Amino acid sequence: MTFFSNLKMWEMMKEIRELVMLFLMALCSKLTATSGKTMTIRKWQVPAEDSYCLSWRLGVETNNIRAWPIVPNQCLRYVESYMILGQYERDIDLIIDQVMDYVNDDVVLSNDGFDAWILDVDDTCISNLFYYQGKRFGGDPYDPKGFKEWALKGVCPAIPGVLRLYNKLIKKGFRVFLVTGRSEATFGQTTLNNLHSQGFLDYERLILRSDEYKGMNALDYKSEIRKNLVEEGYMIWGNIGDQWSDIQGDYVGIRTFKLPNPMYFVP
Amino acid sequence: MTFFSNLKMWEMMKEIRELVMLFLMALCSKLTATSGKTMTIRKWQVPAEDSYCLSWRLGVETNNIRAWPIVPNQCLRYVESYMILGQYERDIDLIIDQVMDYVNDDVVLSNDGFDAWILDVDDTCISNLFYYQGKRFGGDPYDPKGFKEWALKGVCPAIPGVLRLYNKLIKKGFRVFLVTGRSEATFGQTTLNNLHSQGFLDYERLILRSDEYKGMNALDYKSEIRKNLVEEGYMIWGNIGDQWSDIQGDYVGIRTFKLPNPMYFVP
Repeated sequence: MTFFSNLKMWEMMKEIRELVMLFLMALCSKLTATSGKTMTIRKWQVPAEDSYCLSWRLGVETNNIRAWPIVPNQCLRYVESYMILGQYERDIDLIIDQVMDYVNDDVVLSNDGFDAWILDVDDTCISNLFYYQGKRFGGDPYDPKGFKEWALKGVCPAIPGVLRLYNKLIKKGFRVFLVTGRSEATFGQTTLNNLHSQGFLDYERLILRSDEYKGMNALDYKSEIRKNLVEEGYMIWGNIGDQWSDIQGDYVGIRTFKLPNPMYFVP
Repeated sequence: MTFFSNLKMWEMMKEIRELVMLFLMALCSKLTATSGKTMTIRKWQVPAEDSYCLSWRLGVETNNIRAWPIVPNQCLRYVESYMILGQYERDIDLIIDQVMDYVNDDVVLSNDGFDAWILDVDDTCISNLFYYQGKRFGGDPYDPKGFKEWALKGVCPAIPGVLRLYNKLIKKGFRVFLVTGRSEATFGQTTLNNLHSQGFLDYERLILRSDEYKGMNALDYKSEIRKNLVEEGYMIWGNIGDQWSDIQGDYVGIRTFKLPNPMYFVP
């Protein structure tokens, strides 16, 4: 080997080293960029194949897709990411901001004791996310026994945005009705305790499903409940639920708001 | 330099070369993966700051956000990407698949000549995307003069998924009614020509806004039109629009479907 060839080799090596360094730096900066807050979002961002799941979720939330039994298999990871990495919460918060605007700008309370507001309970006031974490976020079929066990624990946490709104509604003077499809006989006391422990106090009535409504679908049952309230003289200013069956049917209220829920469908 | 050091250097160089090759291969495979179809998706993927826009669009499509005058400034690029990079079309196609399922599985036609289906026109049958491209995809306020000029050209292209459904509905024997808030006097002939040139043929009636409905909001106007049809004896099996005002109000039909439109709101 000549000096010349050695020199050439050294130079080539230097060049290659620089290339490697550049690559490593690029890699490093990318790793840095994806750490912390940004990483959450990047993780949340759907890979190409999840474009379908984005369409699916839109279809579900707009009530175009109905009576779906479970989350489609190819969307399990997508829904999990959506639920736990922040977007679900952000979606709720933006909707709650809309409700606040409506309450502040458009509602003129009569203050006659009949200004009503209706809230659904499960995944509206309090969250079953921990339970559904064990059910692949809706990837597993509905399990009445499992859900009963979970609900009887009475440990559903409040959904922060909804609790914030709830306190505002109470303060404003609304008569708040919590209306749930949960069986009164089975879940009455537990649900009441759960709600109280999570800060849902001073509401007008917690209405659970009594025997006379057993087996009725949620849409008809909740329509009946609202009809009774209207006949009692209540004016329903607002009505919020995570299911379309909460906010469709009869006497839905002056304004309705749909919270997201890509984990299960209640007819 | 000894042979030994030379050998070592060669070996080091070989190692580094391999590393570089690996990096280049990794880079290559990434570039390949992001070319073509996949690239569209990756481009479409929202950056962290657009998480708000994802919530905003969900709010709009679920009718939680109403009477919004323009697309929020921070969401201009997001909405543009959504509209032109494929997700809008994919969202429509998934909804159309749902409609097809409903038509195939749930509808039992009476074949008495009164099986009706209602379709909105603008951004349901035919698209104004080219026009809105010049209006920052809804970032600019509504411009009646500009829209009139555009619509009078009669060059709105069919929305492929909806045309596919339309042909199916006609073939199945539905009486299809195209109902639009466009003024009959101003846009009657142009709209008819535009629809025909795009393949919307053999419908039962194209209903434009006659003078008696001038100034009425879309929800009330379309409710009136549907009421007249029901009184004529029609059974409205389905009703599709890109605005909630197309599919809310009275006599909405047995099933309604909401197509996406994050560019403008019609009350």
